[in-house]
Amino acid sequence: MAEKRPFDVLNNALNNSVLIRLKGGIEVRGTMASYDVHMNLVLENAEQLENGELKRKLGTMLLRGDNIVFISPA
Amino acid sequence: MAEKRPFDVLNNALNNSVLIRLKGGIEVRGTMASYDVHMNLVLENAEQLENGELKRKLGTMLLRGDNIVFISPA
Amino acid sequence: MAEKRPFDVLNNALNNSVLIRLKGGIEVRGTMASYDVHMNLVLENAEQLENGELKRKLGTMLLRGDNIVFISPA
Amino acid sequence: MAEKRPFDVLNNALNNSVLIRLKGGIEVRGTMASYDVHMNLVLENAEQLENGELKRKLGTMLLRGDNIVFISPA
Amino acid sequence: MAEKRPFDVLNNALNNSVLIRLKGGIEVRGTMASYDVHMNLVLENAEQLENGELKRKLGTMLLRGDNIVFISPA
Amino acid sequence: MAEKRPFDVLNNALNNSVLIRLKGGIEVRGTMASYDVHMNLVLENAEQLENGELKRKLGTMLLRGDNIVFISPA
Amino acid sequence: MAEKRPFDVLNNALNNSVLIRLKGGIEVRGTMASYDVHMNLVLENAEQLENGELKRKLGTMLLRGDNIVFISPA
Repeated sequence: MAEKRPFDVLNNALNNSVLIRLKGGIEVRGTMASYDVHMNLVLENAEQLENGELKRKLGTMLLRGDNIVFISPA
Repeated sequence: MAEKRPFDVLNNALNNSVLIRLKGGIEVRGTMASYDVHMNLVLENAEQLENGELKRKLGTMLLRGDNIVFISPA
Repeated sequence: MAEKRPFDVLNNALNNSVLIRLKGGIEVRGTMASYDVHMNLVLENAEQLENGELKRKLGTMLLRGDNIVFISPA
Repeated sequence: MAEKRPFDVLNNALNNSVLIRLKGGIEVRGTMASYDVHMNLVLENAEQLENGELKRKLGTMLLRGDNIVFISPA
Repeated sequence: MAEKRPFDVLNNALNNSVLIRLKGGIEVRGTMASYDVHMNLVLENAEQLENGELKRKLGTMLLRGDNIVFISPA
Repeated sequence: MAEKRPFDVLNNALNNSVLIRLKGGIEVRGTMASYDVHMNLVLENAEQLENGELKRKLGTMLLRGDNIVFISPA
Repeated sequence: MAEKRPFDVLNNALNNSVLIRLKGGIEVRGTMASYDVHMNLVLENAEQLENGELKRKLGTMLLRGDNIVFISPA
Protein backbone atom coordinates (compact mmCIF):
# COMPACT_ATOMS: atom_id res chain seq x y z
CA MET A 1 0.00 0.00 0.00
CA ALA A 2 2.89 2.33 0.68
CA GLU A 3 3.87 4.30 -2.44
CA LYS A 4 7.60 4.10 -2.86
CA ARG A 5 7.96 7.32 -4.85
CA PRO A 6 5.52 10.08 -5.80
CA PHE A 7 5.61 9.19 -9.48
CA ASP A 8 4.42 5.68 -8.62
CA VAL A 9 1.03 7.28 -8.12
CA LEU A 10 1.10 8.43 -11.72
CA ASN A 11 2.15 5.05 -12.99
CA ASN A 12 -0.53 3.28 -10.97
CA ALA A 13 -3.13 5.70 -12.30
CA LEU A 14 -2.52 4.85 -15.97
CA ASN A 15 -5.81 3.92 -17.61
CA ASN A 16 -7.65 4.84 -14.45
CA SER A 17 -9.75 7.85 -13.51
CA VAL A 18 -8.04 10.79 -11.80
CA LEU A 19 -9.19 14.11 -10.38
CA ILE A 20 -6.74 16.94 -11.05
CA ARG A 21 -6.70 20.40 -9.55
CA LEU A 22 -4.92 23.12 -11.51
CA LYS A 23 -3.55 26.48 -10.46
CA GLY A 24 -6.30 29.05 -10.78
CA GLY A 25 -8.77 26.59 -9.26
CA ILE A 26 -9.89 24.62 -12.33
CA GLU A 27 -10.54 20.94 -11.71
CA VAL A 28 -10.71 18.23 -14.36
CA ARG A 29 -11.48 14.54 -14.25
CA GLY A 30 -10.53 11.92 -16.82
CA THR A 31 -8.67 8.72 -17.62
CA MET A 32 -4.91 9.11 -17.44
CA ALA A 33 -3.37 7.99 -20.70
CA SER A 34 0.25 9.09 -20.29
CA TYR A 35 2.64 11.31 -18.36
CA ASP A 36 6.24 12.46 -18.56
CA VAL A 37 8.95 13.58 -16.13
CA HIS A 38 7.63 17.15 -16.09
CA MET A 39 4.25 15.79 -14.94
CA ASN A 40 2.77 16.83 -18.27
CA LEU A 41 -0.04 14.35 -18.72
CA VAL A 42 -2.78 13.30 -21.06
CA LEU A 43 -6.36 12.62 -20.03
CA GLU A 44 -8.93 10.85 -22.17
CA ASN A 45 -12.65 11.57 -21.73
CA ALA A 46 -11.69 14.64 -19.75
CA GLU A 47 -14.38 16.73 -18.07
CA GLN A 48 -13.97 20.17 -16.56
CA LEU A 49 -15.73 20.42 -13.21
CA GLU A 50 -17.25 23.31 -11.33
CA ASN A 51 -18.02 22.75 -7.67
CA GLY A 52 -17.71 19.04 -8.39
CA GLU A 53 -20.34 19.17 -11.17
CA LEU A 54 -19.69 18.65 -14.89
CA LYS A 55 -19.08 22.00 -16.61
CA ARG A 56 -18.07 20.75 -20.07
CA LYS A 57 -16.65 17.69 -21.80
CA LEU A 58 -13.20 18.16 -23.30
CA GLY A 59 -12.29 14.72 -24.67
CA THR A 60 -8.51 14.29 -24.97
CA MET A 61 -6.55 16.85 -23.02
CA LEU A 62 -2.84 17.56 -22.63
CA LEU A 63 -2.16 19.23 -19.27
CA ARG A 64 1.08 21.07 -18.57
CA GLY A 65 2.65 19.72 -15.42
CA ASP A 66 3.62 23.09 -14.04
CA ASN A 67 -0.06 24.00 -13.66
CA ILE A 68 -0.93 21.01 -11.53
CA VAL A 69 -1.64 21.44 -7.84
CA PHE A 70 -2.61 17.85 -7.04
CA ILE A 71 -3.64 14.61 -8.68
CA SER A 72 -5.98 12.24 -6.91
CA PRO A 73 -6.81 8.81 -8.30
CA ALA A 74 -10.56 8.38 -8.09
CA MET B 1 -5.84 4.83 -28.70
CA ALA B 2 -3.42 5.04 -25.82
CA GLU B 3 -1.09 8.03 -26.16
CA LYS B 4 2.42 6.88 -25.50
CA ARG B 5 3.80 10.25 -24.41
CA PRO B 6 2.16 13.62 -23.75
CA PHE B 7 3.82 15.25 -26.74
CA ASP B 8 2.22 12.66 -29.02
CA VAL B 9 -0.97 14.65 -28.52
CA LEU B 10 0.75 17.67 -30.01
CA ASN B 11 2.09 15.71 -32.93
CA ASN B 12 -1.27 14.14 -33.64
CA ALA B 13 -2.91 17.55 -33.52
CA LEU B 14 -0.78 19.04 -36.31
CA ASN B 15 -3.05 20.53 -38.97
CA ASN B 16 -6.04 19.85 -36.78
CA SER B 17 -8.19 22.10 -34.63
CA VAL B 18 -7.28 22.52 -30.96
CA LEU B 19 -8.79 24.37 -28.01
CA ILE B 20 -6.16 25.94 -25.76
CA ARG B 21 -6.63 27.43 -22.32
CA LEU B 22 -4.04 29.94 -21.16
CA LYS B 23 -3.12 31.18 -17.71
CA GLY B 24 -5.32 34.13 -16.87
CA GLY B 25 -8.31 32.32 -18.33
CA ILE B 26 -8.07 33.23 -22.03
CA GLU B 27 -9.09 30.48 -24.43
CA VAL B 28 -8.19 30.27 -28.10
CA ARG B 29 -9.11 27.86 -30.86
CA GLY B 30 -7.24 27.30 -34.11
CA THR B 31 -5.39 24.90 -36.37
CA MET B 32 -2.08 23.77 -34.92
CA ALA B 33 0.69 24.47 -37.40
CA SER B 34 3.81 23.74 -35.33
CA TYR B 35 5.21 23.29 -31.83
CA ASP B 36 8.59 22.98 -30.13
CA VAL B 37 9.98 21.33 -27.00
CA HIS B 38 8.95 24.28 -24.82
CA MET B 39 5.35 23.76 -26.00
CA ASN B 40 5.54 27.08 -27.83
CA LEU B 41 3.10 26.58 -30.67
CA VAL B 42 1.63 28.24 -33.70
CA LEU B 43 -2.05 28.36 -34.51
CA GLU B 44 -3.50 29.33 -37.87
CA ASN B 45 -6.99 30.83 -38.13
CA ALA B 46 -6.87 31.43 -34.41
CA GLU B 47 -9.92 32.78 -32.60
CA GLN B 48 -10.06 34.12 -29.06
CA LEU B 49 -13.10 32.81 -27.22
CA GLU B 50 -15.15 34.21 -24.38
CA ASN B 51 -17.49 31.81 -22.62
CA GLY B 52 -17.06 29.54 -25.63
CA GLU B 53 -18.18 32.26 -28.09
CA LEU B 54 -15.99 33.98 -30.67
CA LYS B 55 -14.53 37.20 -29.24
CA ARG B 56 -12.15 38.11 -32.08
CA LYS B 57 -10.26 36.54 -34.96
CA LEU B 58 -6.48 36.62 -34.64
CA GLY B 59 -5.22 34.74 -37.72
CA THR B 60 -1.73 33.32 -37.14
CA MET B 61 -0.71 33.24 -33.51
CA LEU B 62 2.47 32.22 -31.71
CA LEU B 63 1.69 31.08 -28.17
CA ARG B 64 4.37 30.82 -25.49
CA GLY B 65 4.31 27.37 -23.97
CA ASP B 66 4.72 28.56 -20.42
CA ASN B 67 1.30 30.23 -20.55
CA ILE B 68 -0.55 27.10 -21.55
CA VAL B 69 -2.81 25.35 -19.05
CA PHE B 70 -4.21 22.67 -21.34
CA ILE B 71 -4.55 21.76 -25.00
CA SER B 72 -7.53 19.80 -26.18
CA PRO B 73 -7.82 18.52 -29.77
CA ALA B 74 -11.30 19.38 -30.99
CA MET C 1 15.09 17.40 19.03
CA ALA C 2 17.08 19.59 16.67
CA GLU C 3 16.34 18.73 13.03
CA LYS C 4 19.59 18.43 11.20
CA ARG C 5 18.24 19.31 7.76
CA PRO C 6 14.84 20.49 6.54
CA PHE C 7 14.17 17.25 4.67
CA ASP C 8 14.56 15.32 7.92
CA VAL C 9 11.11 16.64 8.77
CA LEU C 10 9.76 14.90 5.69
CA ASN C 11 11.51 11.68 6.51
CA ASN C 12 10.29 11.73 10.10
CA ALA C 13 6.76 12.37 8.90
CA LEU C 14 6.56 9.21 6.78
CA ASN C 15 3.47 7.23 7.75
CA ASN C 16 2.39 10.04 10.03
CA SER C 17 -0.25 12.72 9.69
CA VAL C 18 0.73 16.08 8.21
CA LEU C 19 -1.03 19.38 7.56
CA ILE C 20 -0.01 21.00 4.29
CA ARG C 21 -0.74 24.51 3.09
CA LEU C 22 -0.63 25.11 -0.65
CA LYS C 23 -0.27 28.29 -2.67
CA GLY C 24 -3.70 29.75 -3.24
CA GLY C 25 -4.65 28.96 0.35
CA ILE C 26 -5.83 25.36 0.10
CA GLU C 27 -4.98 23.16 3.06
CA VAL C 28 -4.94 19.38 3.12
CA ARG C 29 -4.34 16.83 5.82
CA GLY C 30 -3.31 13.21 5.36
CA THR C 31 -0.77 10.48 6.02
CA MET C 32 2.53 11.04 4.24
CA ALA C 33 3.38 8.01 2.14
CA SER C 34 6.35 9.27 0.11
CA TYR C 35 8.27 12.32 -1.09
CA ASP C 36 11.04 13.13 -3.53
CA VAL C 37 13.77 15.77 -3.85
CA HIS C 38 11.36 18.25 -5.45
CA MET C 39 9.14 17.96 -2.37
CA ASN C 40 6.50 16.25 -4.50
CA LEU C 41 4.72 14.05 -2.02
CA VAL C 42 1.97 11.52 -1.66
CA LEU C 43 -0.72 11.61 1.01
CA GLU C 44 -3.03 8.74 1.86
CA ASN C 45 -6.47 9.38 3.34
CA ALA C 46 -6.12 12.99 2.29
CA GLU C 47 -8.76 15.51 3.26
CA GLN C 48 -9.16 19.03 1.93
CA LEU C 49 -9.86 21.49 4.73
CA GLU C 50 -11.69 24.78 4.82
CA ASN C 51 -11.15 26.95 7.88
CA GLY C 52 -9.80 23.84 9.58
CA GLU C 53 -12.99 21.83 8.87
CA LEU C 54 -13.28 18.87 6.49
CA LYS C 55 -14.37 20.03 3.02
CA ARG C 56 -14.00 16.75 1.12
CA LYS C 57 -12.16 13.44 1.27
CA LEU C 58 -9.67 12.87 -1.52
CA GLY C 59 -8.06 9.52 -0.68
CA THR C 60 -4.61 9.19 -2.26
CA MET C 61 -3.18 12.49 -3.47
CA LEU C 62 0.00 13.42 -5.30
CA LEU C 63 0.98 17.01 -4.47
CA ARG C 64 3.45 18.95 -6.59
CA GLY C 65 6.21 20.30 -4.41
CA ASP C 66 6.31 23.70 -6.05
CA ASN C 67 2.81 24.44 -4.73
CA ILE C 68 3.66 23.80 -1.13
CA VAL C 69 3.92 26.69 1.33
CA PHE C 70 4.51 24.69 4.49
CA ILE C 71 4.24 21.19 5.90
CA SER C 72 3.46 20.65 9.56
CA PRO C 73 3.51 17.22 11.16
CA ALA C 74 0.36 16.89 13.23
CA MET D 1 1.85 28.07 -45.52
CA ALA D 2 2.76 25.60 -42.81
CA GLU D 3 5.15 27.13 -40.25
CA LYS D 4 7.96 24.71 -39.65
CA ARG D 5 8.85 25.91 -36.18
CA PRO D 6 7.25 28.43 -33.82
CA PHE D 7 10.14 30.88 -34.13
CA ASP D 8 9.60 31.01 -37.90
CA VAL D 9 6.61 33.19 -37.07
CA LEU D 10 8.95 35.67 -35.41
CA ASN D 11 11.34 35.64 -38.31
CA ASN D 12 8.57 36.13 -40.83
CA ALA D 13 7.21 39.00 -38.79
CA LEU D 14 10.41 41.05 -38.95
CA ASN D 15 9.63 44.55 -40.26
CA ASN D 16 5.95 43.73 -40.18
CA SER D 17 3.18 44.72 -37.79
CA VAL D 18 2.39 42.42 -34.86
CA LEU D 19 -0.17 42.41 -32.06
CA ILE D 20 1.26 41.21 -28.74
CA ARG D 21 -0.60 40.29 -25.60
CA LEU D 22 1.33 40.45 -22.33
CA LYS D 23 0.69 38.87 -18.96
CA GLY D 24 -1.54 41.17 -16.95
CA GLY D 25 -3.63 41.84 -20.02
CA ILE D 26 -1.74 44.69 -21.71
CA GLU D 27 -1.73 44.59 -25.49
CA VAL D 28 0.68 46.42 -27.77
CA ARG D 29 0.97 46.75 -31.52
CA GLY D 30 4.05 47.72 -33.50
CA THR D 31 6.60 46.80 -36.14
CA MET D 32 8.87 43.98 -35.07
CA ALA D 33 12.49 45.07 -35.40
CA SER D 34 14.32 42.19 -33.69
CA TYR D 35 14.01 39.21 -31.35
CA ASP D 36 16.26 36.79 -29.51
CA VAL D 37 16.06 33.21 -28.27
CA HIS D 38 14.31 34.29 -25.07
CA MET D 39 11.58 35.88 -27.21
CA ASN D 40 12.71 39.30 -25.99
CA LEU D 41 11.76 41.53 -28.87
CA VAL D 42 11.87 45.10 -30.07
CA LEU D 43 8.93 46.95 -31.56
CA GLU D 44 9.15 50.21 -33.45
CA ASN D 45 6.21 52.63 -33.55
CA ALA D 46 4.71 50.69 -30.66
CA GLU D 47 1.25 51.57 -29.39
CA GLN D 48 -0.37 50.37 -26.19
CA LEU D 49 -3.98 49.35 -26.78
CA GLU D 50 -7.01 49.28 -24.52
CA ASN D 51 -9.98 47.30 -25.75
CA GLY D 52 -8.39 47.43 -29.19
CA GLU D 53 -8.18 51.25 -29.17
CA LEU D 54 -4.99 53.31 -29.00
CA LYS D 55 -4.15 54.18 -25.38
CA ARG D 56 -0.72 55.76 -25.90
CA LYS D 57 2.17 55.79 -28.34
CA LEU D 58 5.41 54.36 -27.01
CA GLY D 59 7.81 54.52 -29.99
CA THR D 60 10.61 51.97 -29.64
CA MET D 61 9.91 49.29 -27.06
CA LEU D 62 11.92 46.37 -25.72
CA LEU D 63 9.59 43.64 -24.45
CA ARG D 64 10.81 40.88 -22.15
CA GLY D 65 9.92 37.52 -23.63
CA ASP D 66 8.78 36.01 -20.36
CA ASN D 67 5.85 38.45 -20.23
CA ILE D 68 4.49 37.50 -23.62
CA VAL D 69 1.29 35.49 -23.88
CA PHE D 70 0.92 35.50 -27.64
CA ILE D 71 2.18 37.25 -30.76
CA SER D 72 -0.06 37.64 -33.76
CA PRO D 73 1.21 39.05 -37.06
CA ALA D 74 -1.34 41.60 -38.22
CA MET E 1 27.88 43.65 13.85
CA ALA E 2 28.22 43.64 10.08
CA GLU E 3 26.83 40.45 8.58
CA LYS E 4 29.34 39.09 6.12
CA ARG E 5 26.84 37.20 3.93
CA PRO E 6 23.05 37.00 3.93
CA PHE E 7 23.05 33.35 5.02
CA ASP E 8 24.98 34.31 8.14
CA VAL E 9 21.67 35.68 9.40
CA LEU E 10 20.19 32.21 9.08
CA ASN E 11 23.10 30.60 10.85
CA ASN E 12 23.01 33.12 13.67
CA ALA E 13 19.28 32.55 14.05
CA LEU E 14 19.60 28.81 14.74
CA ASN E 15 17.78 27.96 17.99
CA ASN E 16 16.49 31.50 18.17
CA SER E 17 13.11 33.02 17.46
CA VAL E 18 12.42 34.40 13.99
CA LEU E 19 9.52 36.18 12.30
CA ILE E 20 8.95 35.06 8.72
CA ARG E 21 6.74 36.64 6.09
CA LEU E 22 5.59 34.42 3.24
CA LYS E 23 4.25 35.25 -0.19
CA GLY E 24 0.51 35.72 0.06
CA GLY E 25 0.94 37.64 3.28
CA ILE E 26 1.05 34.87 5.89
CA GLU E 27 3.41 35.46 8.79
CA VAL E 28 4.77 32.83 11.16
CA ARG E 29 6.95 32.97 14.22
CA GLY E 30 8.99 30.15 15.71
CA THR E 31 12.39 28.82 16.71
CA MET E 32 14.63 28.12 13.74
CA ALA E 33 15.85 24.53 13.90
CA SER E 34 17.51 24.13 10.48
CA TYR E 35 17.84 25.53 6.96
CA ASP E 36 19.36 24.50 3.66
CA VAL E 37 20.81 26.27 0.60
CA HIS E 38 17.33 26.76 -0.91
CA MET E 39 16.32 28.63 2.26
CA ASN E 40 13.95 25.79 3.10
CA LEU E 41 13.80 25.92 6.86
CA VAL E 42 12.30 24.25 9.88
CA LEU E 43 10.63 26.07 12.73
CA GLU E 44 9.81 24.55 16.11
CA ASN E 45 6.91 25.88 18.20
CA ALA E 46 5.69 27.70 15.11
CA GLU E 47 2.72 30.04 15.34
CA GLN E 48 0.78 31.55 12.46
CA LEU E 49 0.09 35.23 13.04
CA GLU E 50 -2.67 37.52 11.88
CA ASN E 51 -2.06 41.24 12.28
CA GLY E 52 0.69 40.31 14.71
CA GLU E 53 -1.67 38.25 16.90
CA LEU E 54 -1.58 34.47 17.33
CA LYS E 55 -3.94 32.78 14.87
CA ARG E 56 -3.00 29.14 15.50
CA LYS E 57 -0.17 27.00 16.84
CA LEU E 58 1.46 24.74 14.27
CA GLY E 59 4.30 23.06 16.20
CA THR E 60 7.05 21.87 13.85
CA MET E 61 6.86 23.40 10.40
CA LEU E 62 8.87 22.92 7.22
CA LEU E 63 8.75 26.08 5.09
CA ARG E 64 9.70 26.06 1.42
CA GLY E 65 12.31 28.70 0.77
CA ASP E 66 10.76 29.94 -2.44
CA ASN E 67 7.75 31.22 -0.50
CA ILE E 68 9.76 33.37 1.86
CA VAL E 69 9.68 37.15 1.54
CA PHE E 70 11.78 38.00 4.57
CA ILE E 71 13.14 36.54 7.77
CA SER E 72 13.67 38.70 10.80
CA PRO E 73 15.35 37.42 13.96
CA ALA E 74 13.23 38.50 16.89
CA MET F 1 17.08 52.10 -37.91
CA ALA F 2 16.68 48.37 -37.57
CA GLU F 3 17.83 47.13 -34.15
CA LYS F 4 20.02 44.12 -34.64
CA ARG F 5 19.31 42.50 -31.28
CA PRO F 6 16.96 43.38 -28.42
CA PHE F 7 19.79 44.29 -26.08
CA ASP F 8 20.98 46.91 -28.57
CA VAL F 9 18.04 48.95 -27.34
CA LEU F 10 19.52 48.87 -23.86
CA ASN F 11 22.94 49.82 -25.09
CA ASN F 12 21.59 52.68 -27.16
CA ALA F 13 19.61 53.90 -24.17
CA LEU F 14 22.66 54.36 -21.93
CA ASN F 15 22.70 57.88 -20.53
CA ASN F 16 19.32 58.53 -22.07
CA SER F 17 15.84 58.68 -20.59
CA VAL F 18 13.73 55.53 -20.55
CA LEU F 19 10.20 54.67 -19.47
CA ILE F 20 9.95 51.27 -17.78
CA ARG F 21 6.85 49.31 -16.92
CA LEU F 22 7.14 46.72 -14.15
CA LYS F 23 5.01 43.73 -13.26
CA GLY F 24 2.24 44.87 -10.94
CA GLY F 25 1.74 47.98 -13.04
CA ILE F 26 4.32 50.36 -11.60
CA GLU F 27 6.00 52.66 -14.11
CA VAL F 28 9.26 54.52 -13.62
CA ARG F 29 11.18 56.99 -15.73
CA GLY F 30 14.87 57.84 -15.45
CA THR F 31 18.27 57.96 -17.09
CA MET F 32 19.70 54.52 -17.77
CA ALA F 33 23.14 54.26 -16.20
CA SER F 34 23.88 50.53 -16.62
CA TYR F 35 22.42 47.09 -17.30
CA ASP F 36 23.53 43.47 -17.20
CA VAL F 37 22.62 40.24 -19.00
CA HIS F 38 19.69 39.62 -16.64
CA MET F 39 18.26 43.00 -17.67
CA ASN F 40 18.91 44.26 -14.14
CA LEU F 41 19.42 47.95 -14.68
CA VAL F 42 20.23 51.18 -12.89
CA LEU F 43 18.35 54.41 -13.38
CA GLU F 44 19.54 57.80 -12.23
CA ASN F 45 17.07 60.57 -11.39
CA ALA F 46 14.35 57.95 -11.32
CA GLU F 47 10.73 58.96 -10.85
CA GLN F 48 7.80 56.68 -10.09
CA LEU F 49 4.80 57.58 -12.21
CA GLU F 50 1.08 57.16 -11.64
CA ASN F 51 -1.13 57.56 -14.69
CA GLY F 52 1.82 59.24 -16.37
CA GLU F 53 2.17 61.84 -13.59
CA LEU F 54 5.05 62.08 -11.12
CA LYS F 55 4.25 60.17 -7.91
CA ARG F 56 7.63 60.43 -6.17
CA LYS F 57 11.31 60.97 -6.91
CA LEU F 58 13.55 58.01 -6.16
CA GLY F 59 17.01 59.14 -7.30
CA THR F 60 19.24 56.17 -8.10
CA MET F 61 17.34 52.92 -8.51
CA LEU F 62 18.42 49.35 -9.16
CA LEU F 63 15.64 47.44 -10.93
CA ARG F 64 15.59 43.65 -11.06
CA GLY F 65 15.28 42.51 -14.65
CA ASP F 66 12.74 39.81 -13.91
CA ASN F 67 10.18 42.45 -12.94
CA ILE F 68 10.41 44.36 -16.19
CA VAL F 69 7.55 44.21 -18.68
CA PHE F 70 8.89 46.68 -21.20
CA ILE F 71 11.47 49.41 -21.63
CA SER F 72 10.81 52.32 -23.93
CA PRO F 73 13.47 54.93 -24.71
CA ALA F 74 11.83 58.32 -24.36
CA MET G 1 28.83 59.10 -11.39
CA ALA G 2 28.06 56.47 -14.00
CA GLU G 3 27.49 53.07 -12.41
CA LYS G 4 29.51 50.50 -14.29
CA ARG G 5 27.33 47.53 -13.43
CA PRO G 6 23.99 47.18 -11.62
CA PHE G 7 25.54 45.39 -8.66
CA ASP G 8 27.83 48.37 -8.09
CA VAL G 9 24.75 50.05 -6.67
CA LEU G 10 24.53 47.32 -4.06
CA ASN G 11 28.19 47.57 -3.22
CA ASN G 12 28.03 51.35 -2.90
CA ALA G 13 25.00 51.03 -0.67
CA LEU G 14 26.76 48.91 1.97
CA ASN G 15 26.34 50.51 5.40
CA ASN G 16 24.03 53.09 3.89
CA SER G 17 20.26 53.49 3.99
CA VAL G 18 18.20 51.96 1.18
CA LEU G 19 14.51 51.89 0.28
CA ILE G 20 13.39 48.52 -1.10
CA ARG G 21 10.13 47.68 -2.81
CA LEU G 22 9.05 44.03 -2.76
CA LYS G 23 6.60 42.12 -4.91
CA GLY G 24 3.16 42.43 -3.39
CA GLY G 25 3.79 46.10 -2.68
CA ILE G 26 5.58 46.00 0.68
CA GLU G 27 8.30 48.57 1.14
CA VAL G 28 11.08 48.47 3.71
CA ARG G 29 13.86 50.86 4.64
CA GLY G 30 17.07 50.02 6.45
CA THR G 31 20.86 49.95 6.42
CA MET G 32 22.28 47.46 3.94
CA ALA G 33 24.64 45.11 5.74
CA SER G 34 25.31 42.49 3.04
CA TYR G 35 24.14 41.00 -0.26
CA ASP G 36 24.91 38.01 -2.43
CA VAL G 37 24.75 37.16 -6.14
CA HIS G 38 21.04 36.27 -5.89
CA MET G 39 20.38 39.78 -4.55
CA ASN G 40 19.47 38.25 -1.19
CA LEU G 41 20.35 41.00 1.22
CA VAL G 42 20.42 41.89 4.88
CA LEU G 43 19.12 45.11 6.33
CA GLU G 44 19.83 46.38 9.82
CA ASN G 45 17.38 48.66 11.63
CA ALA G 46 14.79 47.70 9.05
CA GLU G 47 11.39 49.37 9.06
CA GLN G 48 8.33 48.30 7.12
CA LEU G 49 6.61 51.28 5.52
CA GLU G 50 3.02 51.93 4.56
CA ASN G 51 2.40 54.85 2.23
CA GLY G 52 5.86 56.06 3.17
CA GLU G 53 5.07 56.05 6.91
CA LEU G 54 6.57 53.69 9.50
CA LYS G 55 4.35 50.64 9.99
CA ARG G 56 6.62 48.57 12.25
CA LYS G 57 10.27 48.15 13.18
CA LEU G 58 11.79 44.82 12.21
CA GLY G 59 15.46 45.13 13.25
CA THR G 60 17.67 42.77 11.25
CA MET G 61 16.00 41.39 8.15
CA LEU G 62 17.07 38.90 5.50
CA LEU G 63 15.27 39.62 2.22
CA ARG G 64 15.09 37.05 -0.56
CA GLY G 65 16.35 38.59 -3.78
CA ASP G 66 13.63 37.11 -5.94
CA ASN G 67 11.03 39.24 -4.16
CA ILE G 68 12.75 42.51 -4.84
CA VAL G 69 11.29 44.94 -7.36
CA PHE G 70 13.73 47.79 -6.87
CA ILE G 71 16.36 49.09 -4.48
CA SER G 72 16.92 52.79 -4.10
CA PRO G 73 19.78 54.21 -2.01
CA ALA G 74 18.32 56.94 0.17
